[in-house]
Amino acid sequence: MTSEKKRKSNEFPGSFESKCINTIRFLAVDAVQKANSGHPGMPMEASDLAYVLWSKIMRYNPKNPQWLNRDRFVLSAGHGSMLLYALLYLTGYNLTLDEIKAFRQWNSKTPGHPEYGCTPGVETTTGPLGQGFATGVGMAMAERFLANRFNRPDFPLVDYFIFSLVSDGDIMEGISSEAASLAGHIGLGNLIYIYLDNRITIEGPTDFALSEDVGRRFDAYNWQVQHVNGYDLTGIEESIQQAKGEKSKPSLIIARTNIAYGSPNKQDSADAHGAPLGEEEVALTKRHLQWPETPAFFVPEDVLLHFRQAEKRGQERENEWLSLWEAYKKSYPELAHEWENMHKEPDPSQWENSLPLFKPEDGAVATRSASGKVLQAVAPHLPGLIGGSADLAPSNNTFLKNFGEFKNTGGRNIHFGIREHAMGAILNGMALSGALIPYGGTFLVFSDYMRPAIRLAAMMGLPVIYVFTHDSIGLGEDGPTHQPIEQLSSLRAVPNLMVIRPADAQETVEAWKIALSRRDGPTALILTRQKLPIIDRDRYAKASELRRGAYILADAPESKPELILIGTGSEVPLLLSAYEQLLDQGIQVRVVNVPCWELFEMQSHEYHEKVLPSYVNARLAVEAGCPYGWERYTGTQGKIIGIERFGASAPGEELFQQFGFTVEHVIKDAKELLSSV
Amino acid sequence: MTSEKKRKSNEFPGSFESKCINTIRFLAVDAVQKANSGHPGMPMEASDLAYVLWSKIMRYNPKNPQWLNRDRFVLSAGHGSMLLYALLYLTGYNLTLDEIKAFRQWNSKTPGHPEYGCTPGVETTTGPLGQGFATGVGMAMAERFLANRFNRPDFPLVDYFIFSLVSDGDIMEGISSEAASLAGHIGLGNLIYIYLDNRITIEGPTDFALSEDVGRRFDAYNWQVQHVNGYDLTGIEESIQQAKGEKSKPSLIIARTNIAYGSPNKQDSADAHGAPLGEEEVALTKRHLQWPETPAFFVPEDVLLHFRQAEKRGQERENEWLSLWEAYKKSYPELAHEWENMHKEPDPSQWENSLPLFKPEDGAVATRSASGKVLQAVAPHLPGLIGGSADLAPSNNTFLKNFGEFKNTGGRNIHFGIREHAMGAILNGMALSGALIPYGGTFLVFSDYMRPAIRLAAMMGLPVIYVFTHDSIGLGEDGPTHQPIEQLSSLRAVPNLMVIRPADAQETVEAWKIALSRRDGPTALILTRQKLPIIDRDRYAKASELRRGAYILADAPESKPELILIGTGSEVPLLLSAYEQLLDQGIQVRVVNVPCWELFEMQSHEYHEKVLPSYVNARLAVEAGCPYGWERYTGTQGKIIGIERFGASAPGEELFQQFGFTVEHVIKDAKELLSSV
Repeated sequence: MTSEKKRKSNEFPGSFESKCINTIRFLAVDAVQKANSGHPGMPMEASDLAYVLWSKIMRYNPKNPQWLNRDRFVLSAGHGSMLLYALLYLTGYNLTLDEIKAFRQWNSKTPGHPEYGCTPGVETTTGPLGQGFATGVGMAMAERFLANRFNRPDFPLVDYFIFSLVSDGDIMEGISSEAASLAGHIGLGNLIYIYLDNRITIEGPTDFALSEDVGRRFDAYNWQVQHVNGYDLTGIEESIQQAKGEKSKPSLIIARTNIAYGSPNKQDSADAHGAPLGEEEVALTKRHLQWPETPAFFVPEDVLLHFRQAEKRGQERENEWLSLWEAYKKSYPELAHEWENMHKEPDPSQWENSLPLFKPEDGAVATRSASGKVLQAVAPHLPGLIGGSADLAPSNNTFLKNFGEFKNTGGRNIHFGIREHAMGAILNGMALSGALIPYGGTFLVFSDYMRPAIRLAAMMGLPVIYVFTHDSIGLGEDGPTHQPIEQLSSLRAVPNLMVIRPADAQETVEAWKIALSRRDGPTALILTRQKLPIIDRDRYAKASELRRGAYILADAPESKPELILIGTGSEVPLLLSAYEQLLDQGIQVRVVNVPCWELFEMQSHEYHEKVLPSYVNARLAVEAGCPYGWERYTGTQGKIIGIERFGASAPGEELFQQFGFTVEHVIKDAKELLSSV
Repeated sequence: MTSEKKRKSNEFPGSFESKCINTIRFLAVDAVQKANSGHPGMPMEASDLAYVLWSKIMRYNPKNPQWLNRDRFVLSAGHGSMLLYALLYLTGYNLTLDEIKAFRQWNSKTPGHPEYGCTPGVETTTGPLGQGFATGVGMAMAERFLANRFNRPDFPLVDYFIFSLVSDGDIMEGISSEAASLAGHIGLGNLIYIYLDNRITIEGPTDFALSEDVGRRFDAYNWQVQHVNGYDLTGIEESIQQAKGEKSKPSLIIARTNIAYGSPNKQDSADAHGAPLGEEEVALTKRHLQWPETPAFFVPEDVLLHFRQAEKRGQERENEWLSLWEAYKKSYPELAHEWENMHKEPDPSQWENSLPLFKPEDGAVATRSASGKVLQAVAPHLPGLIGGSADLAPSNNTFLKNFGEFKNTGGRNIHFGIREHAMGAILNGMALSGALIPYGGTFLVFSDYMRPAIRLAAMMGLPVIYVFTHDSIGLGEDGPTHQPIEQLSSLRAVPNLMVIRPADAQETVEAWKIALSRRDGPTALILTRQKLPIIDRDRYAKASELRRGAYILADAPESKPELILIGTGSEVPLLLSAYEQLLDQGIQVRVVNVPCWELFEMQSHEYHEKVLPSYVNARLAVEAGCPYGWERYTGTQGKIIGIERFGASAPGEELFQQFGFTVEHVIKDAKELLSSV
């Protein structure tokens, strides 16, 4: 430590607390300046609020960021990431000052926006506005669920709070409105959000685009609303305590703040949003706030010692909780066992035997219906399985009978309301508890409404399950607005999202097995509205082959195949019919079922070559969706029967005829292909 | 007409108005029953409100659905489509009773949800909840803009209202919150929305998921809020007149209604949502409301005569307006000329000469910056060009200098706020005016937030322009949350959306030419944050070749090509460098630039074969995004340098290195490819 660094804060004027706060503030300023990139305005603005939260309110253990009963901090205004990194460093998380100096550089733990899994203490990835806000609601719902399930008199095993700093973007984005309405409806008393009311956005003053009465609006959502000066430490602390005391409502504390607080020329200016202050303004600001101009990244020793008390405090709090947990285990051994189980890697042997079995003789079944049966079958064995639908439960078959309503009762059925986007983020928040396996349903076409949340689930590697039903024009009369066309392609393009479109009820069981076992990312199940025949697995390959992503469902019986029919989901039975007819005509044809591209891509080159041998150029892919992307498997000489327009309103069977999804069309195109390649 | 059909309404009891209303109600009931598909509950619930609107309030001409100053009716609750079809038929639009009987059938004009362009009188496609609500805000903004621009004392050329029936879905969806906040901010007095407060959603009572105080919330948004009984005709009319009188605020009329009004067993039940009543319940309901049980689709003659007065009334109103227009032309010939121009097909000769020209010697230019220059250059010549950004104008370069702020002044710069989804729908609403060329900007990654609105623009074929900047990892430090990966693929998969990613500033000019000339669908411009060199068009092919979607930018000089490098946008300069080095090494290489897949797909087979001859298997595609889909042009033997994960936070140039977008990597992969195929 240099002599300069050893300087204590009493060597320069101002209260000790203001020095602590300025330490946060100028770590952010200096890091943004050094990176020559980032947002200094927000950390400068919110250092006082953050100081109160992290030194006086929140329960956390820097040495164990995984402590289950810690309070959660969500920086919904993720562009202010340096605020969070400064706090994590100062309070003693595993984040060094060197990492702060490497802000926004390759391979640092201090990326431009907070990233879950990258930096210890970062609870969720934020940056896309509104996501943190809504994810926090999911975290709070997880806490309420676990508290309802596990707390017993004198055993408050789960009683953490979710704190968040939210910005104008969160106030304006629709996803936050959805989440706020639901949070108020449920009455999430464990949710405490502080709104940085700085009246500045990137384009300029917020009154360019925002003049609503935010407090009144949140009051209408059934939130407790308070107003506070963002630089009045006592007022801030009191308002947070007041919020903690309100057990039946979420709280919004509207803090009047100034962006780039302390900067003589950039405070209250949009210029402080997405760019460093500049060397000169950094110096002026330090002078203005009576902070030493050098060195950069200055942390007075006593300030650090003060912040680092969080380690001892946190360890004590965790120890208290661990004592509680030990006593709990003795008093409630079964519940304790369940708790432990919910936090472990999933063990499929606990539920695999309960899965339904679908046989051809039982008749046709919609895959959405099969999915509902799987959910119902595994639910008793998976106490962390919790979810619902964005007001389409009867259509998505997502309701768990006998498992109660989430609201007030600790039940496992959530009514998300007509709020797909918030549902997506809430699922993320629930998954982040580490205890829950959250699922959410809507029509496949409305996956578009929740894409930003799906993307974050994929980026964070969260085990979230989407139940997307009504998966093609096969849904029929509702017409083009409800018929997915480009959704399958668009979801397959998302990195780390597993998209599974089973071809019958039995494959739906297999798809759920994959989804429930996956821990490192989300899975989208793509299910039909209409009934599909159960494939005869005595005649064709086993449904369990789904785990390879693609497999030879029916092969050329007499020689190498000369033609390959490729398909997914509801088009597979069609291909099997075509296959039988082509066989009768002496054509050596193979049917390859591709329920999951991502799983297939994980297989070896040898397996790929086995399933789709490169010597076969006559390949016909059939999928009732946009053909985009299928050339990967058909090659440029192959053909795709897909849909290159939007759908239409008519009965589903008629649409399949009109759009060419018929055995006759498949046979015709297959033969043309055979004669042309 | 059968004798039964000739029956007049005075043959059975009840007031004449209630018969008119029941005619609407039972047309819907019978049509849903005949289709055995659809939503009867909402039309049954809202027939009284619709009757008041369409017979006492709205100005429209059934014989000219295009009359420019008509009031607009938006059925945001699009699932109640039969309500609208019944009104259109009864008031005399070109929609027959036979079409009503063909509800939800192939090729009928009465699809499951209202479709713009399919049915005369349908102002916008609705169904995906919240879209109608937000699109209506765009329509109202268009009206305000045109009124500000063209109205003169005693010449109220533009003074129409936007009416909408909105449902619980609209109240809950985030897009509506965004749009409502902006509408209140602007003070859209021409917007009158009636909320069908029926307390029932698909899953059951709304209190499963909704308990906010809707009125208080909209009051906070600066809306006028009224409450009314949805079956009190006088009260309804008075509340709408009250709403029309409030010129400085949008209005929400909260109408307490009953879903499936009149059905003895299904009123106020979620069962009435997505399924026909059933023959028996239809009969019971008719009996309950004293309506003849047979025939189905019964329209009393006097009721029809009464509704059809709308034709005469509408023609008179249009005639009055046409007289006003004739006088206006004499008093304000220049404005009248501008008005006419704005409603015509665009004439590129009016603005093409003003376009900027970018040359290599002027130095590197970010395509977002070139885009801003184009916008500024054409704006004086295109008075209908209007738009803005979702709070990223300084980054998207979307601000039109010297064209004022939209709010209150009739300027052309809109601050949408941090509300991408509402922006998307508002652009649709503005485009539906037929007079405006709306554009909206945000970061490409946030196109995810507005996908449902983009989809509707594509479905409706609206000339909307998206300015999507920050188009790859090249944006740098903001990191993976802000770096698009799958967005390009996902947008290319949308039918009828044109996605253009220019390779330099000059191609950006060409891309804008395409976008401004396109009338039958939306265009997404994909632009860089970082500077790109201007391609030397003396050495390489002309930028105007962009209009073919893909073209040979640089060719093998000495023989047929043995290798083709394929790329878009910021990767093209990289390919040109690799090309020069490969040429030096004696390799006959071609560079194909593919700025727009959709345009390329429209070209002839011969052109495709010319650009990408089938005899060349060594094809390397390079794009700083997800490789999904590129096999269409590389074939299965080719290779793709793309990104199969999420991005990272670091300076953009470093990321290009780390992710393999370097000349060395391209050359290495190209050579490997050459030796392997």
